[in-house]
Amino acid sequence: MKKPWAGRFGATTDKKVEEFTASVAFDRQLAAYDIAGSIAHARTLARAGVLTADETDRLERTLTQIGAEIEAGTFTFRDDLEDVHMNIEAALSQRLGDLGGKLHTGRSRNDQVSVDTRLFVKERAGRAMDGLKRLRLVILDRAEQHIGAVMPGYTHLQPAQPVLLSHWLLAYWEMFHRDAARFRAAGNAADVSPLGSGALAGVPYTLDRDYTAGLLGLSGPTANSMDAVSDRDFILDFLFAAAVTMMHLSRLSEELVIFSTAEFGYVILPDGYATGSSIMPQKKNPDTAELVRGKSGRVYGDLISLLVTMKGLPMTYNRDLQEDKEPLFDAARTVIDCLGVTAGMLAKITFDTDRMSRALAKGFVTATDCADYLVGRGMNFREAHETVGRIVAQLEKEGKGFESLSPERLKEFSALFDRDVIQILTVDSSVQARSVFGGTAPSRVAEMIERATAVEKEDMT
Amino acid sequence: MKKPWAGRFGATTDKKVEEFTASVAFDRQLAAYDIAGSIAHARTLARAGVLTADETDRLERTLTQIGAEIEAGTFTFRDDLEDVHMNIEAALSQRLGDLGGKLHTGRSRNDQVSVDTRLFVKERAGRAMDGLKRLRLVILDRAEQHIGAVMPGYTHLQPAQPVLLSHWLLAYWEMFHRDAARFRAAGNAADVSPLGSGALAGVPYTLDRDYTAGLLGLSGPTANSMDAVSDRDFILDFLFAAAVTMMHLSRLSEELVIFSTAEFGYVILPDGYATGSSIMPQKKNPDTAELVRGKSGRVYGDLISLLVTMKGLPMTYNRDLQEDKEPLFDAARTVIDCLGVTAGMLAKITFDTDRMSRALAKGFVTATDCADYLVGRGMNFREAHETVGRIVAQLEKEGKGFESLSPERLKEFSALFDRDVIQILTVDSSVQARSVFGGTAPSRVAEMIERATAVEKEDMT
Amino acid sequence: MKKPWAGRFGATTDKKVEEFTASVAFDRQLAAYDIAGSIAHARTLARAGVLTADETDRLERTLTQIGAEIEAGTFTFRDDLEDVHMNIEAALSQRLGDLGGKLHTGRSRNDQVSVDTRLFVKERAGRAMDGLKRLRLVILDRAEQHIGAVMPGYTHLQPAQPVLLSHWLLAYWEMFHRDAARFRAAGNAADVSPLGSGALAGVPYTLDRDYTAGLLGLSGPTANSMDAVSDRDFILDFLFAAAVTMMHLSRLSEELVIFSTAEFGYVILPDGYATGSSIMPQKKNPDTAELVRGKSGRVYGDLISLLVTMKGLPMTYNRDLQEDKEPLFDAARTVIDCLGVTAGMLAKITFDTDRMSRALAKGFVTATDCADYLVGRGMNFREAHETVGRIVAQLEKEGKGFESLSPERLKEFSALFDRDVIQILTVDSSVQARSVFGGTAPSRVAEMIERATAVEKEDMT
Amino acid sequence: MKKPWAGRFGATTDKKVEEFTASVAFDRQLAAYDIAGSIAHARTLARAGVLTADETDRLERTLTQIGAEIEAGTFTFRDDLEDVHMNIEAALSQRLGDLGGKLHTGRSRNDQVSVDTRLFVKERAGRAMDGLKRLRLVILDRAEQHIGAVMPGYTHLQPAQPVLLSHWLLAYWEMFHRDAARFRAAGNAADVSPLGSGALAGVPYTLDRDYTAGLLGLSGPTANSMDAVSDRDFILDFLFAAAVTMMHLSRLSEELVIFSTAEFGYVILPDGYATGSSIMPQKKNPDTAELVRGKSGRVYGDLISLLVTMKGLPMTYNRDLQEDKEPLFDAARTVIDCLGVTAGMLAKITFDTDRMSRALAKGFVTATDCADYLVGRGMNFREAHETVGRIVAQLEKEGKGFESLSPERLKEFSALFDRDVIQILTVDSSVQARSVFGGTAPSRVAEMIERATAVEKEDMT
Repeated sequence: MKKPWAGRFGATTDKKVEEFTASVAFDRQLAAYDIAGSIAHARTLARAGVLTADETDRLERTLTQIGAEIEAGTFTFRDDLEDVHMNIEAALSQRLGDLGGKLHTGRSRNDQVSVDTRLFVKERAGRAMDGLKRLRLVILDRAEQHIGAVMPGYTHLQPAQPVLLSHWLLAYWEMFHRDAARFRAAGNAADVSPLGSGALAGVPYTLDRDYTAGLLGLSGPTANSMDAVSDRDFILDFLFAAAVTMMHLSRLSEELVIFSTAEFGYVILPDGYATGSSIMPQKKNPDTAELVRGKSGRVYGDLISLLVTMKGLPMTYNRDLQEDKEPLFDAARTVIDCLGVTAGMLAKITFDTDRMSRALAKGFVTATDCADYLVGRGMNFREAHETVGRIVAQLEKEGKGFESLSPERLKEFSALFDRDVIQILTVDSSVQARSVFGGTAPSRVAEMIERATAVEKEDMT
Repeated sequence: MKKPWAGRFGATTDKKVEEFTASVAFDRQLAAYDIAGSIAHARTLARAGVLTADETDRLERTLTQIGAEIEAGTFTFRDDLEDVHMNIEAALSQRLGDLGGKLHTGRSRNDQVSVDTRLFVKERAGRAMDGLKRLRLVILDRAEQHIGAVMPGYTHLQPAQPVLLSHWLLAYWEMFHRDAARFRAAGNAADVSPLGSGALAGVPYTLDRDYTAGLLGLSGPTANSMDAVSDRDFILDFLFAAAVTMMHLSRLSEELVIFSTAEFGYVILPDGYATGSSIMPQKKNPDTAELVRGKSGRVYGDLISLLVTMKGLPMTYNRDLQEDKEPLFDAARTVIDCLGVTAGMLAKITFDTDRMSRALAKGFVTATDCADYLVGRGMNFREAHETVGRIVAQLEKEGKGFESLSPERLKEFSALFDRDVIQILTVDSSVQARSVFGGTAPSRVAEMIERATAVEKEDMT
Repeated sequence: MKKPWAGRFGATTDKKVEEFTASVAFDRQLAAYDIAGSIAHARTLARAGVLTADETDRLERTLTQIGAEIEAGTFTFRDDLEDVHMNIEAALSQRLGDLGGKLHTGRSRNDQVSVDTRLFVKERAGRAMDGLKRLRLVILDRAEQHIGAVMPGYTHLQPAQPVLLSHWLLAYWEMFHRDAARFRAAGNAADVSPLGSGALAGVPYTLDRDYTAGLLGLSGPTANSMDAVSDRDFILDFLFAAAVTMMHLSRLSEELVIFSTAEFGYVILPDGYATGSSIMPQKKNPDTAELVRGKSGRVYGDLISLLVTMKGLPMTYNRDLQEDKEPLFDAARTVIDCLGVTAGMLAKITFDTDRMSRALAKGFVTATDCADYLVGRGMNFREAHETVGRIVAQLEKEGKGFESLSPERLKEFSALFDRDVIQILTVDSSVQARSVFGGTAPSRVAEMIERATAVEKEDMT
Repeated sequence: MKKPWAGRFGATTDKKVEEFTASVAFDRQLAAYDIAGSIAHARTLARAGVLTADETDRLERTLTQIGAEIEAGTFTFRDDLEDVHMNIEAALSQRLGDLGGKLHTGRSRNDQVSVDTRLFVKERAGRAMDGLKRLRLVILDRAEQHIGAVMPGYTHLQPAQPVLLSHWLLAYWEMFHRDAARFRAAGNAADVSPLGSGALAGVPYTLDRDYTAGLLGLSGPTANSMDAVSDRDFILDFLFAAAVTMMHLSRLSEELVIFSTAEFGYVILPDGYATGSSIMPQKKNPDTAELVRGKSGRVYGDLISLLVTMKGLPMTYNRDLQEDKEPLFDAARTVIDCLGVTAGMLAKITFDTDRMSRALAKGFVTATDCADYLVGRGMNFREAHETVGRIVAQLEKEGKGFESLSPERLKEFSALFDRDVIQILTVDSSVQARSVFGGTAPSRVAEMIERATAVEKEDMT
């Protein structure tokens, strides 16, 4: 087909170049948004007197029909028509003749592709937020279920202090709650209409850009036409939100992989979320968690990809910008899928709280409490720390735990130890003591579950 | 010096390991925040009855004094004391004996380093926002000064349509305005106090965490102790804000480099912002702009660096997290410096508007207007586009521009051309016509300068 | 279908998880290599006495047939069969019954996927090297064609010294020649056979691994089974080679974009490699070059993606490793396509050497020669540099070039100037003078073209 | 001080710009190479008749002296002198007057900085290779020491099959051996002399560039002057080598962190390489391994940083290139340090082989052998796999391991089981069976240690 811009050209586009520059293989994902944008533009042209009511109706009806065909998979996309916009436009012209071409009045591919992408980002940001919410609700659910259970809390992957399993879960609630704010920001950044910006300088028609924006459910028009067609910040915002979310998911996945090892054994993955080995019959592998963890790489790559493409680009539109779409599509799909499978997996995971209890018995996790006890009796913290350090070293040598200690034995290390220290060394006492705001004491954790639940309810509206 | 945690250890730290793990060479940048955090913690301990008023006073006075010595450069940091916290703590203990050690009550290095970094991020986010504001004010200033001037607007670095120089400037205003929102988000993310989270589980003292936060000018306490000590999202938010800002700066720099070439000649860089060559006497190089452009690389690197370090880390604190600081420090310094020099350079740049005018005469930049003219007379847009395309091809062959065209000549291409087309082909007519909201018409651009000026005034408060 | 590892599982895989973990949508690209690997494995099993000659024949024939069907597009891949290996295996079992299953003897999915990917990398590295060679041959061709032409050489995008157009072209020859070495290294890194490594520990069959390697055209077997199934270095090598090649291509593209601007005008892109604008009839945009430049982002992203995925992975195989394929496929396709279109474009570009000549007249590009002249007459270089600097500043003020200078005028700046300086200031004299090895003197450049041509011939073999 | 290029400039450099563009704070690390390069250049100028023997001697002596002062720390670097080259040059001129300036004949900052960096890369690549060798020798040493010990081999961090501890160690030997090849390639890429390339076009002096290269121990001169001053591939090669090495180190570190947990307990870190907690007295944290793992982030960042800076740079030298140094310096220091501490740590690690043995008893790690046994008796592999899967599921339910199985019990699952299966299920039998080349059989592993030892000896020369 003859290119719509062929007027000044002597030779036709090289076949290989046509394939190389074509984007319809992937940008067809924008079809629904392209249709919506075109309908809004048609109505705005009508309001400006460029189209008659009848013309507008016919355009709208035909566009809607094309959209339905695409949705149904009966529309044939052609590679030689370069991109999704040209494909739809060609169909329109074929069906409506000259009227199809009129839709291009007061619009350029530059503002058109921008509005399509903005609508996509806004919608996908919403879906990511939904995915985050579902995951957070699962977390709250599991946290409520296991409110009594205690597990070893780790620093450096070494047992540090006992914490509630629910407290551990709520830490992830915090992360995924922050993530939602990033997607919200990305959605808001996308939520403006560039239509009316033309190729770069604005259009010579008195288009009511607020009206267009309103039709598309966007908050208003962009303020500078040059910026409008060259801005991809809203995609970067989305990619960053996705990258940080994937980072959080990779941390949770890593913990699930480690906690489901034979050696830790704190969680048992649901069979539906694990896979076996084609060669080793005993294997039950945490594939889902591993794949989520591994996919952080691709989303980081998507982010850096667009940052690199944008680096040093002169204004306004440059064809480099076509490279904004695939990382966006890939990251959107990846993060939404990963949130979905993680929520599904977490909902069905079995927490082996007995195993956690047994682990607590071995880890010297109340050593800090022991030191705090000595401080309470007047010892300098540094000295108390050292005293307990010596006790631990001695017990390790003997292959024993704190539970083996009698008050008498303790007195050998410091005269300040009294009978009541035995109680202090228990896991329950330790978690109870940490009742500061944000701490792991059961009452606090219960309060935090309530707070989070309230937040979720508010967000609903 | 004996480590504060040496109790259970049989051997001392390997000298090389000590050097390898030491962070004092760079984390001393946190000293002022560490002092502030310690004073707030001391007061909170006093309120909780752990310290007497007198002890608190002595701690506060000595901490203030140490802070002053660090500020003045008279304090000696020791590498074998690992980090800034230990250095200050050691000085405190040396001067106050046992009382120094008491400050460690209810605090761990994990929440301490987090609060220091949060204060740093909050402050630097503010400075970056200041830098962005200064740059935006320069942009507005230059836009006002040159309100009449017209330049070729580019897409694909090919002359596209005429735009106001001020319109081009305002496009950057939009970018740097969006950047401020990202730094604000980073500052807000940092604006909570982790003190009271202890090592990971909360502390067994009834610390008033709201009080601590208030003393530090932070909005409130963090909600989950495990998340609090392992969260570095606020640094990532800062690094992303910096990366996008650098991307925008790299685009402006690229345009300044290109616009200051002998071939374009649209801008003349101030001598103070260019450098010469040690070997070629005629050179005046846009080094400042190039360096700003090149530094986008390091800030992208800083962002990816921390994203990688965080990937797959199990909770809560792991020593990997020490690697959060250098990318943060580097990005903060880089982005603030780049904003500063760019503002300085832009303030003094000479725009060669004559040269721009001459370029406009050659670029067929009103070809779109010519096509729109034909559309206005009833021609289908696609046909109009092609007609004008043929005119351009013909003129290019003859080495002429639109200004050479007579109405008669034009009629050879289409009978729809009339005498008034000559006016339409002028640059002035073209920009005037784009009076849609966000367009480049002088009246619109003037309005936008006013809007932006009003925004800047509001932001002041 | 029942999973091949379902023995110990109580529940079937969640449908969503199946979709999430499936890789057949993309790893079918490995089909031909998978078939080849299976045939080689079957023959090795035969040699070890595990399969009879007849069994081996039937397996080989059926595998070849399946391969032909895949090639022809008549084979139906099923998503629920997870990956390409399972799809082929299922077809094999369907057609051969139990015999199909026997092929799994002494082989695991872990060594199987590794050998497939290695064969892919080796083949694609070869194709990238072919693409580089073709591009280099175009460069040499153009360099020979234009051996006489002189252009301004730039530093900081400011005219610096005159250089031969051919010298500029040859600089890219050097880059693309280095790139080939990186792909060669990647191909060599891939060129070993992991078959026989089993899941991770080696297989309990006396397989002749040298024989397998030989059948596959690989140099030999891997030396450590654990490393063999977890090593992805050869993919990283490929991705890095691709990233650096894209960087070089982005530099060439940037120069073509700039050189084809109205303002520079040094090159005229072939119509077949440029595109127009749907709205601006005068436009001829360097889309191909821009897209190549922009695609550097995605390949950088591919590299970082796999580096991130590999970070911190414990041995040996983890499902994260499935994420190695898409960046590899994407980078391979991208770099090979970009090399192809760049070679095509460069072959047809018109160099406007007249325009280059005119630009040389204006750029003071022989200022260094002028300074060197004074040095030759005994002036200190620093003083000479300054003297010429003053001449340039004066001429710029007057809007004149060196060609306007008479010996008399020059004497006003220094008594050391003599009549012969006029010759020195010519572009021809300047390039002739740089006859040092690697310099831009026509004789040297001609010599370098010969050298490069000889290198290309040697590489042929 | 007046800039050496100030001739044509009307205003002096802005103070802030001077600070912003200065590189002496970091590029002083190149001082020794700058001195070496200058001496070689002086001698080459002498050979070309530009300098007398006496002048050359004086230059060389003074340069050597300046070098000694820098080495001794008595040389004062000045920020206002921009970079290391200017600092040395200024000192030279101060001590030798006009003669100092003569050294600039036939040399530009562009080829000068390139040669300095090349010498740096070559030297640091050598050091990294030394560091790798030391680490590999430690690995071989530990592998020899523990040749008998068996540990669970993991896939997906789930026990898979038994492997020799030495086999696990040798897998890392393979990785670190491949890494050396990448550093060798980087060193070779750096190993050419750009001196004589001048600013970009070559120099108008008959310098014997082979002679210069020989003096510097470089293999020869670069072939194209434009490429020579703009090429940074050799730095990218180094950064990539460093990134992959860090990836390998991050994997080893991850395993050490996991293996040293209370739950795994396979390794006990040397006290000198672990640290404690300032608050929790029982802690012994794997800080060194964590920090090495975390530092992968910064080196990945360094690599992406330079790739980004190079993207889309027009030839030849642009100031952006100044940004090549800090990532290089950072990555070189990081990778060399990390190799050093990892070698130190690995040399002193205690492997708890008893613990490994106990873990093997629980992990069903010989399940594959059990399946292979059934295959050997004629069962289809898929069926055998499923049979063993059912045995494992049953035992898991009962909380038992393979050691609990009697031949009778096994017969319940398949009649093919016989008395000899008990032997097959032992760990020793399993590793013995994998005697294929590259497998974990003790004889093979011993052979591989010998091979590797031989390789190390050859590399020595």
